[in-house]
Amino acid sequence: MSIEKTEVTTLAQAARNAARELANCTRAQKDEALNLMAKEIIEGSNEIILANEIDVSNAVDAKIDSAIIDRLTLNESRIQALADGLTEIAKLNDPVGEVIREFNVASGLRITQRRVPFGVVAVIYEARPNVTVDTAGLTLKSGNCALLRGSASAINTNTKLVEIMRVALANSRVPEDAIQLVSAKSHNSVTELLMARGLIDVVIPRGGSALIEKVVTESKVPVIETGVGNCHVYIDKSADFPKAIAIAVNSKVQRVSVCNAAETILIHSEIAAQFVPKLLEAFAREGVTIHGDDSMIAYAQAAGINFELATDSDWADEYYSLDIAARVVSDLDEALSHIQKWSTGHTEAIVATDEKAISRFTSELDSAVVMVNASTRFTDGSEFGFGAEIGISTQKLHARGPMGLQELTTSSYVVVGDGHTRH
Amino acid sequence: MSIEKTEVTTLAQAARNAARELANCTRAQKDEALNLMAKEIIEGSNEIILANEIDVSNAVDAKIDSAIIDRLTLNESRIQALADGLTEIAKLNDPVGEVIREFNVASGLRITQRRVPFGVVAVIYEARPNVTVDTAGLTLKSGNCALLRGSASAINTNTKLVEIMRVALANSRVPEDAIQLVSAKSHNSVTELLMARGLIDVVIPRGGSALIEKVVTESKVPVIETGVGNCHVYIDKSADFPKAIAIAVNSKVQRVSVCNAAETILIHSEIAAQFVPKLLEAFAREGVTIHGDDSMIAYAQAAGINFELATDSDWADEYYSLDIAARVVSDLDEALSHIQKWSTGHTEAIVATDEKAISRFTSELDSAVVMVNASTRFTDGSEFGFGAEIGISTQKLHARGPMGLQELTTSSYVVVGDGHTRH
Repeated sequence: MSIEKTEVTTLAQAARNAARELANCTRAQKDEALNLMAKEIIEGSNEIILANEIDVSNAVDAKIDSAIIDRLTLNESRIQALADGLTEIAKLNDPVGEVIREFNVASGLRITQRRVPFGVVAVIYEARPNVTVDTAGLTLKSGNCALLRGSASAINTNTKLVEIMRVALANSRVPEDAIQLVSAKSHNSVTELLMARGLIDVVIPRGGSALIEKVVTESKVPVIETGVGNCHVYIDKSADFPKAIAIAVNSKVQRVSVCNAAETILIHSEIAAQFVPKLLEAFAREGVTIHGDDSMIAYAQAAGINFELATDSDWADEYYSLDIAARVVSDLDEALSHIQKWSTGHTEAIVATDEKAISRFTSELDSAVVMVNASTRFTDGSEFGFGAEIGISTQKLHARGPMGLQELTTSSYVVVGDGHTRH
Repeated sequence: MSIEKTEVTTLAQAARNAARELANCTRAQKDEALNLMAKEIIEGSNEIILANEIDVSNAVDAKIDSAIIDRLTLNESRIQALADGLTEIAKLNDPVGEVIREFNVASGLRITQRRVPFGVVAVIYEARPNVTVDTAGLTLKSGNCALLRGSASAINTNTKLVEIMRVALANSRVPEDAIQLVSAKSHNSVTELLMARGLIDVVIPRGGSALIEKVVTESKVPVIETGVGNCHVYIDKSADFPKAIAIAVNSKVQRVSVCNAAETILIHSEIAAQFVPKLLEAFAREGVTIHGDDSMIAYAQAAGINFELATDSDWADEYYSLDIAARVVSDLDEALSHIQKWSTGHTEAIVATDEKAISRFTSELDSAVVMVNASTRFTDGSEFGFGAEIGISTQKLHARGPMGLQELTTSSYVVVGDGHTRH
């Protein structure tokens, strides 16, 4: 297959060449590079802040949403957090070379399956400059070269961050081309990344649903789809009420702008009369707006609480805000059908004490993570003990749920014989 | 995302509905269905042969290559083999529900990662009707519904085989729609399968490189790429000569029409004068034609053996015939560079006694399988002890190398708490 020569293919070819060397770097060499990167980032704080001020000022001029400007903004403590993230990654176990399976077969051959890096990983993401540093650290530790394609709005910050990290690599035993920034000047560079099959091994989109949809439908490079989370909490008739309230509220409000926040709550009809008023009160205290079905609305009216009538888009979409869709379901079957119809396959939670209901919920739903009596917010690489995560996979190939270092590797087999031939 | 209603999406929707039921079938229910399928196939032998005769006669009229007609043809013993394949699959362990990891985390949550089916798997393949039965058996055992899209040339045989297997399912506790044949009347049905993202979880192409390339570049459904194998055998200067000859010959001639046959042999220059004449003689005895570089050709001329001069296409392509590309390399580095340049990432073999050469060969090559002192022909699901295989993955996402039942599953997490909320 011939690939057109572009800026992206030139960078990708450099990454491919570096990948061979990086794959054989030891853990000590990679950790040394990560710690150097952290040190250079701290030393470059002033330069990073100056570059970041240009991006922030451009964003203000462009009247970009203040939440996005907040995520774009770096200050000394955030830069410290970036550096700390790298030193934390240095402390994680190196997945490369781990033996997954090792066995002898009838012919006498010894077969070993080991973890190896993918090679070249492209990550396409939105305005958060912390992704630049996190991703560079995680890909490097897992032995992969990173092609980073951030958004145009963070271009000055990202350019400075990558420049500084590459200075660190130049002083380490890890190849400098292990970390490369792809120009964000035109949308074309995204398309070029998606077409560079054979040069790039995997593309990971990190961002909103429009970005993910574009990558997933256009890419000729294999994709790991991350993050769209229309997460449900189902309160069974067997639920402990205080736990149910705590889990429902935590799932919704602990952080609203993330993929593992709950977007819909379903309540078993047999407990609705007792439970829903308490729930509405708890949500109201947190400033959550209810988008309810007819039953929910009757309860809200009775309690004098504001509400909106839910439409299909309420069941389908993520709010990323203090809003939740809510519905009374006649039974567990109706809850399962609702979730099967509307879920994006990220995380669903059940609050119940009935083992049979729990068992059906965990076996009949087809989502990456099913929570039993726990908040949806626990679907997270750190909470899973993976140390860090590059995203939450909502596809079924390769990785599912929180992706740590292990999920940034593939495997290969070494088969040892002694002159073995096949009959 | 809206998916256009077509024959394929109607079948895929039926498969999706059946997938939920099949995912929760027990091993006993699935094995019963597999054994019933085997029984019905034996009982339907005459009908199958009659249907097959139409396909074979059409192929003869269309002057199709005799090797392809041979693969298309079914007789009583081949039908018995199809049935035996199904009863063998019934004996394999069920991967569904296996616990991959189970651990407690700091917050007190208990996390279990278990194997679950993909759901709906589409397999697109060429004229071999045995793939219809093998694939149906493997997908069913791994809890997946199969959409089978064979070639138009086998349409009568495949229609009869699927009809018979579905009769067996109708008499079992496994949903009938677990196995469905997609019409091969138009090429459109392939495109429709590749567009049915959201209905189909994975597409697996089984066939030649043109089919695989089409699927890989056009599909919006995640793909597991199988099978293109430009496999290399490298004879190091430290090799044991008799073992080297045996492995080189076996890798090439034991079966030429398969992806794990060797297509190129590389010989270290320091042993060329002693080794190459013996090798050429051994290949000549088996009727193998050498496509050599200048050095090889000099040896061939000296030995009075026929040869052709190798061009880039000899290094790049699979022969699937009694031909082999051959080159004298100055050292291990040149061998590694040659393989890195031309390999399709399937299987490479080294014949050597020098541990350092072996270690570099196994760590510096980026192929699914590296053989040490063993024939490339061992890259095979049965030889790996997987019992059966649906193909050999040459991509890095999800599965790499021979794919058994385990590789036809994904995983999901169950997280159990006791009212846990995140702080």
